Amino acid sequence: MVWDAWGIPAGHKPLSAQIRGLLAQVFGVSGDPVARRDEGDVPLRASALSSDRRDGLVAVVGADHVSVDHQDRLRHAGGKSTPDLLRRRADGTQDAPDAVVFPADHAQVLAVLAYCTEHAVAVVPFGGGTSVVGGVDPVRGRFDAVIALDLRRLDAVSRVDPISGTATLGAGLTGPRAEELLGAHGLSLGHFPQSFEFASIGGFAATRSSGQASAGYGRFDDMVQHLTIATPSGTLALGRAPASAAGPDLRELFVGSEGALGIITEVTVRVHPVPETTAYQAWSFPDFETGAAALRSVVQAGAAPTVFRLSDEAETGLNLARSGDVGGNAVSGCLAITTFEGTAAHVAARSAEAGALLAAAGGKALGDKPAREWEHGRFAAPYMRDALLDLGVLCETLETATTWANLANLKAKVTAALTDSLGGQGTPPLVMCHISHTYPTGASLYFTIVAKQLDDPIAQWHIAKQAVGDAIVAAGGTITHHHAVGTDHRPWIPAEIGDLGVRVLRAVKQELDPAGILNPGKLVP
Amino acid sequence: MVWDAWGIPAGHKPLSAQIRGLLAQVFGVSGDPVARRDEGDVPLRASALSSDRRDGLVAVVGADHVSVDHQDRLRHAGGKSTPDLLRRRADGTQDAPDAVVFPADHAQVLAVLAYCTEHAVAVVPFGGGTSVVGGVDPVRGRFDAVIALDLRRLDAVSRVDPISGTATLGAGLTGPRAEELLGAHGLSLGHFPQSFEFASIGGFAATRSSGQASAGYGRFDDMVQHLTIATPSGTLALGRAPASAAGPDLRELFVGSEGALGIITEVTVRVHPVPETTAYQAWSFPDFETGAAALRSVVQAGAAPTVFRLSDEAETGLNLARSGDVGGNAVSGCLAITTFEGTAAHVAARSAEAGALLAAAGGKALGDKPAREWEHGRFAAPYMRDALLDLGVLCETLETATTWANLANLKAKVTAALTDSLGGQGTPPLVMCHISHTYPTGASLYFTIVAKQLDDPIAQWHIAKQAVGDAIVAAGGTITHHHAVGTDHRPWIPAEIGDLGVRVLRAVKQELDPAGILNPGKLVP
Repeated sequence: MVWDAWGIPAGHKPLSAQIRGLLAQVFGVSGDPVARRDEGDVPLRASALSSDRRDGLVAVVGADHVSVDHQDRLRHAGGKSTPDLLRRRADGTQDAPDAVVFPADHAQVLAVLAYCTEHAVAVVPFGGGTSVVGGVDPVRGRFDAVIALDLRRLDAVSRVDPISGTATLGAGLTGPRAEELLGAHGLSLGHFPQSFEFASIGGFAATRSSGQASAGYGRFDDMVQHLTIATPSGTLALGRAPASAAGPDLRELFVGSEGALGIITEVTVRVHPVPETTAYQAWSFPDFETGAAALRSVVQAGAAPTVFRLSDEAETGLNLARSGDVGGNAVSGCLAITTFEGTAAHVAARSAEAGALLAAAGGKALGDKPAREWEHGRFAAPYMRDALLDLGVLCETLETATTWANLANLKAKVTAALTDSLGGQGTPPLVMCHISHTYPTGASLYFTIVAKQLDDPIAQWHIAKQAVGDAIVAAGGTITHHHAVGTDHRPWIPAEIGDLGVRVLRAVKQELDPAGILNPGKLVP
Repeated sequence: MVWDAWGIPAGHKPLSAQIRGLLAQVFGVSGDPVARRDEGDVPLRASALSSDRRDGLVAVVGADHVSVDHQDRLRHAGGKSTPDLLRRRADGTQDAPDAVVFPADHAQVLAVLAYCTEHAVAVVPFGGGTSVVGGVDPVRGRFDAVIALDLRRLDAVSRVDPISGTATLGAGLTGPRAEELLGAHGLSLGHFPQSFEFASIGGFAATRSSGQASAGYGRFDDMVQHLTIATPSGTLALGRAPASAAGPDLRELFVGSEGALGIITEVTVRVHPVPETTAYQAWSFPDFETGAAALRSVVQAGAAPTVFRLSDEAETGLNLARSGDVGGNAVSGCLAITTFEGTAAHVAARSAEAGALLAAAGGKALGDKPAREWEHGRFAAPYMRDALLDLGVLCETLETATTWANLANLKAKVTAALTDSLGGQGTPPLVMCHISHTYPTGASLYFTIVAKQLDDPIAQWHIAKQAVGDAIVAAGGTITHHHAVGTDHRPWIPAEIGDLGVRVLRAVKQELDPAGILNPGKLVP
């Protein structure tokens, strides 16, 4: 990915005249995009890694796989949250890891951890670098130096079991590469988060990622059958069966461990045959509550589609769900997207059952076109954020989840916190929301926030983020449904698991990482 | 439950003439049932609890709720594995907890744990007492005394949320009582393990129980939304949302914690409306592998029934799945049971899709009768075990799980280990097996073993159990799919989670239970 924005250069495109008109009208923003700095010209903090340490790491992974190169360091300087991107675009010296290390395999990861434990070097595991919560920030903690441990060379599919529907994937495989290699076996993982094009298998596991097809294939944590984990205290190999009663499920300590308890090097996941067929069907509901109740009726009946989403009135009105027509022809009500994948018989049965329930709950069928359009543009939103940021518009997303009964309350409280905190700074926001992940007992809420930038947009957003985090916790939601904790959500972890839960996490960390080198400042308060 | 057998007296009935004939023919066993001892006459180890300690506990829960009564102690002397029952039926002094304490609520559980930590008394949490792995054995560890902490008074349904489909249940509620209280709201939990009639909600959670309707409603660990846990270090309240990425899922440390890390006092579970309708359909397959492949095709298509079972040739031949006709008219091939619950539309759609797949995979539809018969007798098998034990027949069950690709191998290895180890003692067994829990990536295997008893049947079974445990681990299965660890499976936990995994468990236990009073000798090696 490019160093100061999302994705690859080819993905970036200017905003349409329609959107620019809208921005001028709503926020009074009409400037030209800010020129980007050339990557080579960016002043970078000098590497704090001594030549001794560098030699020590070279002895572990080889000279070609330890880099203090300017570009390598800059491209491992952090993730892709809006504050991250604003920091990159700001003038001044950029922070970055003191070196980037590229281990070849699990054994080298173990050896690097042993070396760094002995020599007091912090280690930030790095997959696709798509964190939007500060998860890959080069935090040194109490150490003099920090390295990014880039896992891209762990890119093998080492075992495929088409009978059981499992595959063992290297942590460094990106989403598209994993799908390509599985596709050669007629298989698919079916995990399509918005970060899909760049994020890694290890990252999906370490952050409890959830993809757009989660209603059909489950969250990534549901898919994980087995994990291999390197820690300073040795190797963990967890998961012996599809299900077990052999005590606590320790896998669940490491999915979501964000590199703070160990480094996931290999993941055995559930896969499925490439779907025989896919059906698309969009729906319109008069309002969000009616739509949410309709989604609930389907999920609780056991008839969930593969993709199941509902945009609220604001998001529907701006066509944010349809990348080809964002900001275009206004649409009223709330748009829902369904897709159904599988065998022809399964798709026919499931789409008929779900469709009948959605219609009975007040839905109006819109045909397949809006659903196909959504699918076509589903990875494009982060590129649009870059274009907005360039124009002086603040744009960020956040997400939470709660029970169905609490969903409207949580949505109102989050919206109010955003409106009050940004409005209070003189920049009233547009707040849009959708449900993108559904469960029998509740659903996620994903918010997109757009406002005019102030002179210090990082501080501007920090105020809003603090208010929203407090509002989410007070309203009974989880601080994050699928973006993970990183640095940004760490203040709310005690509210999430209690002080005693924090002590449990610390006890596990102490056992596995007694020197505390693993991803300092992330996850564990 | 009665002290020396399963269940209640009304459930016990003599074996049919057909079965007795079969037993005489196969094992040469033809005696009359052994007379049971009167509960009051059983010599019991004297209580080791000093009067000071007893007074201390009375101060916490009240005089009416601390018992050193003979019957109370005897009925908390252990679980219901075959070795447990054989020990009870043996002559000689019985071991038992030194007192039974009945706390009223979470606060009293916390206070009892604080008291026992301070005064060095071991605590065995006790729900329904149905453990078949030694999970409630009165093990003192390094302490002078042990109490059974009976949670039956924690029997409230404190919250019901019919919108979200959740209910908050006291840990001491039994299965039938929970269903009764939920039924008043038109709701059901749908968790029906063989222990259903006596086991408790807290026990289901603490042991990762899995019910006969797991294909439809999931395992109990899937149902758990929130846990309240009392530990010597304080209270944990875990689970804020239907799904979360807020770090490791600490709930998964406590489902399956078997009272060794904390005591679950309240569980919020997913519930569903009492099904509108239930469809029953039995199937016959020519052999187990064909049947297993058929089940796999259905689960992997996303079309699983609510109940989904397949008996192997031996189990089918003895009609073990049909309590009304056990040992009766021989049936060939392999019997599969399906039931479908839910709305009429869901049942119609799902049963049609699953039925088409089963037929395509070589299944022959047998109509609803065998499935209804299975349901009618589904909690009766443990009573039959008692009758067999009385006649000098050894009868025990064990279970494991693995991937679909490894299922036939694991079944063969377990069968061989049982046949060799019991045959080697001159008592060749009948080994029957069924699949009772299915997943996209694999399934459970549940074995019933019958053989002639030797003079020391506990030692006889111990040899077989050791051989089977080693065989399961060597063949890649999990040491237990739903019976839990207790004392009996503890030797294989290092094989299950590795030495480093054991260190993680110990670190968590040390943090939460520094004195080590919680269920000594169970779970943690």
